[in-house]
Amino acid sequence: PDPALVEAARERLGGLATPAGALGRLGDLAVWVAATQGAVPPAPIERVRAVVLAGDHGVSDHGVSAYPKAITGAMVRTFVAGRAGVSVLARQHGVTVRVLDLGVEEDLADLDPAVREFKVRAGSAPIHLQDALTVGEARRAMAVGAMIADQEIAAGAQLLVSGDMGIGNTTPAAALIAASLGLPAEAVTGRGTGVDDAGLAHKTAIVQQALDRVGDRADDPVVTLQALGSADLTASATFLARAAHAGVPVVLDGVISVAAALVAERLAPGAAAWFVAGHRSTEPGQAIALEKLGLEPVLDLGMRLGEGSGAVAAVPLIRSAGLLLADMALLADLLP
Amino acid sequence: PDPALVEAARERLGGLATPAGALGRLGDLAVWVAATQGAVPPAPIERVRAVVLAGDHGVSDHGVSAYPKAITGAMVRTFVAGRAGVSVLARQHGVTVRVLDLGVEEDLADLDPAVREFKVRAGSAPIHLQDALTVGEARRAMAVGAMIADQEIAAGAQLLVSGDMGIGNTTPAAALIAASLGLPAEAVTGRGTGVDDAGLAHKTAIVQQALDRVGDRADDPVVTLQALGSADLTASATFLARAAHAGVPVVLDGVISVAAALVAERLAPGAAAWFVAGHRSTEPGQAIALEKLGLEPVLDLGMRLGEGSGAVAAVPLIRSAGLLLADMALLADLLP
Repeated sequence: PDPALVEAARERLGGLATPAGALGRLGDLAVWVAATQGAVPPAPIERVRAVVLAGDHGVSDHGVSAYPKAITGAMVRTFVAGRAGVSVLARQHGVTVRVLDLGVEEDLADLDPAVREFKVRAGSAPIHLQDALTVGEARRAMAVGAMIADQEIAAGAQLLVSGDMGIGNTTPAAALIAASLGLPAEAVTGRGTGVDDAGLAHKTAIVQQALDRVGDRADDPVVTLQALGSADLTASATFLARAAHAGVPVVLDGVISVAAALVAERLAPGAAAWFVAGHRSTEPGQAIALEKLGLEPVLDLGMRLGEGSGAVAAVPLIRSAGLLLADMALLADLLP
Repeated sequence: PDPALVEAARERLGGLATPAGALGRLGDLAVWVAATQGAVPPAPIERVRAVVLAGDHGVSDHGVSAYPKAITGAMVRTFVAGRAGVSVLARQHGVTVRVLDLGVEEDLADLDPAVREFKVRAGSAPIHLQDALTVGEARRAMAVGAMIADQEIAAGAQLLVSGDMGIGNTTPAAALIAASLGLPAEAVTGRGTGVDDAGLAHKTAIVQQALDRVGDRADDPVVTLQALGSADLTASATFLARAAHAGVPVVLDGVISVAAALVAERLAPGAAAWFVAGHRSTEPGQAIALEKLGLEPVLDLGMRLGEGSGAVAAVPLIRSAGLLLADMALLADLLP
């Protein structure tokens, strides 16, 4: 965002008929909304589009998740039926939801072909044993992510939401965060959908094994995605980088979305200025990655549903911020 | 709320197609929404009505506020014009806002007479020197608060919002909280709209002087309101107690609203079960009073605007909670 616009937005904020700082975080968000729109006062945020990228993960055959892989496909059907958590929230807030199968193991041939249009592969290889994707698959996933962002922007998105679905996905997300920040697995690995203490220890060991296997190759962000990510995580990273490059702001969700954002920032330094953190998840890696990105979540409700749900739940507050900056009385009006 | 309904709501929450606890605080809120509605699943919350009670405070002539008293009347005009912060948020969320002059010093004779319909007096006496209201004024303010709640409920409110406007009002609010909890002034007094360190020390001394002056008389919640409150704070307390008595849930706002809720709980023990805390304000007394009431705020955005703004900002999340419980797929649907 243009520093002159940030300055102009701050000046308008300071001129509102409120005590200085009385809007708290909504004031900071208002400045971000105006700056990312390139407009002071900002326009109402009407067209918000959420993209949920779904995929399976080879590691989920290795005891890292409390739920079986079959849930991934079942949840894609639930999105299509409009009955997932994010579907309910999106309906409430007039947000479109597009669910795309990037790497679900199940075939899903009975669904609208648009859901599978960008499928890169079925599942991914277990990252502690081998690279998640081939080089070709990673290239394809990167192109797909960027193209999806372009499509959403072409459709008029003023604000994008990055969501995810996939049993086992907190394991590659932890690996991406650890590899990007040079941290050990235990600093970033969490319980995901709810593994017990033994499950957490095992999951942490799997993440560490993956990090050790890849070693210095993770100095390259593209290799990080290919070796430790998956088709959906790789596409998420380029989706985010492309949105930032195009100057369209994005609401990040939980640890999956934030792991992808961390890699997006490595691919396109400065991208994080276009991101806002929708909510604080319960995964430790999310907090660490957000701090690195300089982002403070809007909501802190202990949510860990994924799907983009925490991001969509935050949309009304982001809208509020912009509306307050645009529509509140100015002190100059009040006391002439 | 009926414990059987709480149980039924928890059971439905546990049956949703999500990992256990994945909705975090939204899950708890969903149970509260269903239980206060007396319906599982809950109905959508469509009719939300905010009441902003305005008044001036004698202590504001004694250096407790960063702003002059004239702002109170100017802000009432801003509400009427629909340009206050809460007006903007309420428009966004389809919430009605009713602003009522309970004790503004300015005459406001040029405004719609409905704004002044329930005016108890102009201003209030300085609480460190004498009782804020006469016994008769306090009785009248109590009746008015209850009647306003009845009117809003009769108009169909499914959810009420308690807001406030009045320069100097964090001083009597601190006194009400300290008197209700037997705490010293320094534990509960904050900077309000932004007094400096010397101003805070002076404000704290004024609150302590008021507490010392009233002494054991504050054991009676009605005397607490009469001696340490104001017309608007007194009416807020009975507004809240009456809403709870009628079984209509209320979203509390900042320190003013929560101070009134604390006295409402003293007037009508159990009332707090009908309240939800919209946001965490920056005033220390609000956090202490919320803890006593067993309430955890939905939002924590550093807001300190008053007006009911933090409560209205939280309305979409309260709506989300109810909608998620009602409309998400059940696990039984997903894996038959």
